[in-house]
Amino acid sequence: MSAQKIVVIGGSAAGPKAAARARRLDAEAEVTLLQKAPELSMASCGYPYYIGGDFDERDSLLATPTGVVRDPAFFAAAKGVNAKVNTEVTAIDRENRTVSGIDLGSGETSTVEYDKLILCTGANPRRPPIPGIDLDGVCSLSEMRDADRLRGLVDAGRVKNAVIVGGGLIGIEVCEALTKSGMNVSVVEMLSQLLTFLDWEMAKLVEKHVASKGVTVHTDNGVAEFLGEGGKLTGVRLKDGTTVPCELAVVSIGVVPNADLARDAGLAIGSFGGVTVDEYMRTSDPNIYAAGDCVEINHRITGKKVFAPYGDLANLEARVAADNMVLGDARTFPGTVNSGICKVFDLSAGATGLSERRARDEGFEVVTATNASLDRPGFMGARLLVSKMVADARTGRILGFQCVGPGEVNRQLAEAAMAVMNGNTVLDVNTADLPYAPPFSLAIDHFITTAHILDNKMCGRMTGIGNAEVKARLDNGEKPFILDVRAPGEFEAMRLNVGETLIPLGALRNAQDKLPVDKDAEIIAFCKISMRGYEAQRILEARGWTNVKVMEGGIMAWPFHVDMGR
Amino acid sequence: MSAQKIVVIGGSAAGPKAAARARRLDAEAEVTLLQKAPELSMASCGYPYYIGGDFDERDSLLATPTGVVRDPAFFAAAKGVNAKVNTEVTAIDRENRTVSGIDLGSGETSTVEYDKLILCTGANPRRPPIPGIDLDGVCSLSEMRDADRLRGLVDAGRVKNAVIVGGGLIGIEVCEALTKSGMNVSVVEMLSQLLTFLDWEMAKLVEKHVASKGVTVHTDNGVAEFLGEGGKLTGVRLKDGTTVPCELAVVSIGVVPNADLARDAGLAIGSFGGVTVDEYMRTSDPNIYAAGDCVEINHRITGKKVFAPYGDLANLEARVAADNMVLGDARTFPGTVNSGICKVFDLSAGATGLSERRARDEGFEVVTATNASLDRPGFMGARLLVSKMVADARTGRILGFQCVGPGEVNRQLAEAAMAVMNGNTVLDVNTADLPYAPPFSLAIDHFITTAHILDNKMCGRMTGIGNAEVKARLDNGEKPFILDVRAPGEFEAMRLNVGETLIPLGALRNAQDKLPVDKDAEIIAFCKISMRGYEAQRILEARGWTNVKVMEGGIMAWPFHVDMGR
Repeated sequence: MSAQKIVVIGGSAAGPKAAARARRLDAEAEVTLLQKAPELSMASCGYPYYIGGDFDERDSLLATPTGVVRDPAFFAAAKGVNAKVNTEVTAIDRENRTVSGIDLGSGETSTVEYDKLILCTGANPRRPPIPGIDLDGVCSLSEMRDADRLRGLVDAGRVKNAVIVGGGLIGIEVCEALTKSGMNVSVVEMLSQLLTFLDWEMAKLVEKHVASKGVTVHTDNGVAEFLGEGGKLTGVRLKDGTTVPCELAVVSIGVVPNADLARDAGLAIGSFGGVTVDEYMRTSDPNIYAAGDCVEINHRITGKKVFAPYGDLANLEARVAADNMVLGDARTFPGTVNSGICKVFDLSAGATGLSERRARDEGFEVVTATNASLDRPGFMGARLLVSKMVADARTGRILGFQCVGPGEVNRQLAEAAMAVMNGNTVLDVNTADLPYAPPFSLAIDHFITTAHILDNKMCGRMTGIGNAEVKARLDNGEKPFILDVRAPGEFEAMRLNVGETLIPLGALRNAQDKLPVDKDAEIIAFCKISMRGYEAQRILEARGWTNVKVMEGGIMAWPFHVDMGR
Repeated sequence: MSAQKIVVIGGSAAGPKAAARARRLDAEAEVTLLQKAPELSMASCGYPYYIGGDFDERDSLLATPTGVVRDPAFFAAAKGVNAKVNTEVTAIDRENRTVSGIDLGSGETSTVEYDKLILCTGANPRRPPIPGIDLDGVCSLSEMRDADRLRGLVDAGRVKNAVIVGGGLIGIEVCEALTKSGMNVSVVEMLSQLLTFLDWEMAKLVEKHVASKGVTVHTDNGVAEFLGEGGKLTGVRLKDGTTVPCELAVVSIGVVPNADLARDAGLAIGSFGGVTVDEYMRTSDPNIYAAGDCVEINHRITGKKVFAPYGDLANLEARVAADNMVLGDARTFPGTVNSGICKVFDLSAGATGLSERRARDEGFEVVTATNASLDRPGFMGARLLVSKMVADARTGRILGFQCVGPGEVNRQLAEAAMAVMNGNTVLDVNTADLPYAPPFSLAIDHFITTAHILDNKMCGRMTGIGNAEVKARLDNGEKPFILDVRAPGEFEAMRLNVGETLIPLGALRNAQDKLPVDKDAEIIAFCKISMRGYEAQRILEARGWTNVKVMEGGIMAWPFHVDMGR
């Protein structure tokens, strides 16, 4: 039996993983990897940190943990993989099982035979048809050369003003990098919020923090035109007419699957433009697999196909694809719950599963709880976490979890992702046995507390109201009785200043005269995080008030202006 | 209907939680809490950090996140709970539904009626019958006054030498606290390892680190006698005859349930001496519940009753008990997977589920994988994690996970705990969708990588060998061919020096002459973390060697001596 010929198209994340794995599974296989870019195995998620100066060694984006650059010589010696860079694949001949390529240096063309082929062609940045987009100074961040160029601009120090077009994950990471390097940065986002994996009020917390770092955020806005002089960018004109002067604009409005080769070869393509694969990561051609940012995968909650271009999924998909290419139908890939996290200056922010908005769009009847509390005890240097849990009102199944704050968001989202993947209910999380010691968490972990709050809401014991709804109603001229049950010192340090009444919780049982006479009057109680707000609700209801609500997350989750100091 | 009378015995963790929760659920209830100690709601897990000077405000161990001390006035005003401190309950009269108490200050006795009673009497430190244990200078760390006393000794600065008896969680935390405060500390442990929730070779990594901080660790040893002069401790004589001079000895050899009241009242008691409760946290008397360190609970994997005195579980159990006391059989407590974590100087160490040893003791056929790798990319300041995954060989179900290292152990254990609780298999974790960005994790999370290694082992692709077994065989005079496949620079910086042969992985495919001629000779390959060790196995097998093993975790998980430098 002659050696199996495996060809891998693409050398960023999924490609090298598939190639190395396939070679380990079949030591006789001839594995060829064809990569268009000059580099291999780029840690592209690290580009923003390289640009921002978190580290200076460009090669560390391309190196193994022991510092060996993953070039073709490395792939040959350590992995037994024949990797060709600067080699663009131009066509797939499925009948003859060959791919045609061109050496971008020499212009030489070649043909490679395959028994099994895997497409890891990644994604391309969206490029909106905006006038002036070809001006010098408008770029995106997709390839290593983009990172090189942006880092060069940072090092040269001549760019004073930069505009980020798009407030998603990459946009926010680049925003931080350029701000830290001393540029004046503006972010322009078409939608009403940054980071759309968060619900609006959670994203507003991020926006408030970004603004506190000197960044100007334009939401509900877009770029009408890139302005230039002599071919060079000088500013952007926004849809609302504002002009923002800048010498640099980074367009990061998302990516689209790079599925041209697959489409040209007649493979099935999904509604997002990605390659269609089954649970074995196999395309519509049984000899061709695909993995990474060029495919559409299953969403574990909705069961629908989604486009989920994340570096971690690319690796996991590639491993499954390699197993199946070499071993037959050995492994399946169950799909995504859209887990994501990012650093935003002094905050971390992320989500797993469905946001409230998306869950409603998918037809779920939804209950939510917002929880602002600490990540560990105060005496151990506690930091704030603000979270939102989204559950199916009928079954209690946790559909999603979002977390934002200076605290230990990483652990919260990791455990939440496991809960969402496992279809855990609020009751399951209520009694979860998680690792606890004061340097690491509270005795009742923040994620569990969030479940407790949602449990209380679902049982009708706590009646919550979202801060966005409170703000909208106040802006609309409504006058509910807003009750702050914190201590006077807390009030003096920071307060909503929306006409609220201060009655500290400890005084509430004897404060009849300060409360509405009408027992059916709406009372909206809150405190710092709204644990005391909940106690207040229970106390007032026991005393006969019938319409008491708790503003969830308290003042710490309030994403609007607060008054500080005396 | 007259108000329901709820009495809570105990005011540390479970007691206050049960009292406050019950009162919130039933605003009419008369809730009385009786506490023997002068304090309430002590954050006892924080004592070691108070002793070690991580913070100075004693009251922060007793305060809410906003700094209000949880004293009886606080419980009355904020929680509607009648809390009495310095009040010891002496008997329960189940027939008349009363408890008798004595005010430890005035000596006055009293009787309180109950409709529902909950026992949250906690646990007491084990006190071994060792000669000299009553000497001044021998103490334990259980109550607030113990913490006060130890902090006083630290502040006075006169104790030069201290001995910790018992190398469990508390022992190790106190060891760190006293070492940081400048004392010479020795730890004496009867068993062959510290931290018995870890397997031996994982615990040895912790021991090596503790020793590197100047602590003397005596394992397989015990205290034969506390030595004294004039009633004061001057040293300890160990079972092996060694004498260790010291002015302070902290005995921390575990705790036993404080179930005397329950036993005297005729309630069912389990084999560990804890109060027997059902899944509703109800004792053998339908009007009496129990929660916290005085009970035995279900182990979720073995289904057996265990004694699991953890502060987090105490709170969760108390919440369930309160729900059932007030609402009827509303909630169940599913039990524990023994999740635990602790800080050990610059390391974190913890476990969830069963260790390999315990899983074997429980009759499981076990497979394991050890993984030494990084918590995030090298360019983001990666730190090491060493983990061990234990799975059921027949089903692939993950039975346990241990993690030790300077890296982000917290997230690893939290996600592992969720996996263990959910009965996830190695294949489930193989494709888990966890939050990823370079500041937070590797593209393939360390927990997932560990599953991948175990998957490779279970499929027979990787043949692992534990470092403890390698060491034992070398010590026994055996001479397997030990193959280090790292780079020469890595070898020069740090090496096992057990007669190994260095052949860098990249040179292995052409190194026939340096390898054993006998293709059936045993070869044990390793590298820094043993990813390259695994590649080496695959390469050598492809070239005909039949008995190649990978030393799991590589040199980074090697818990014995290594040679450093040239």
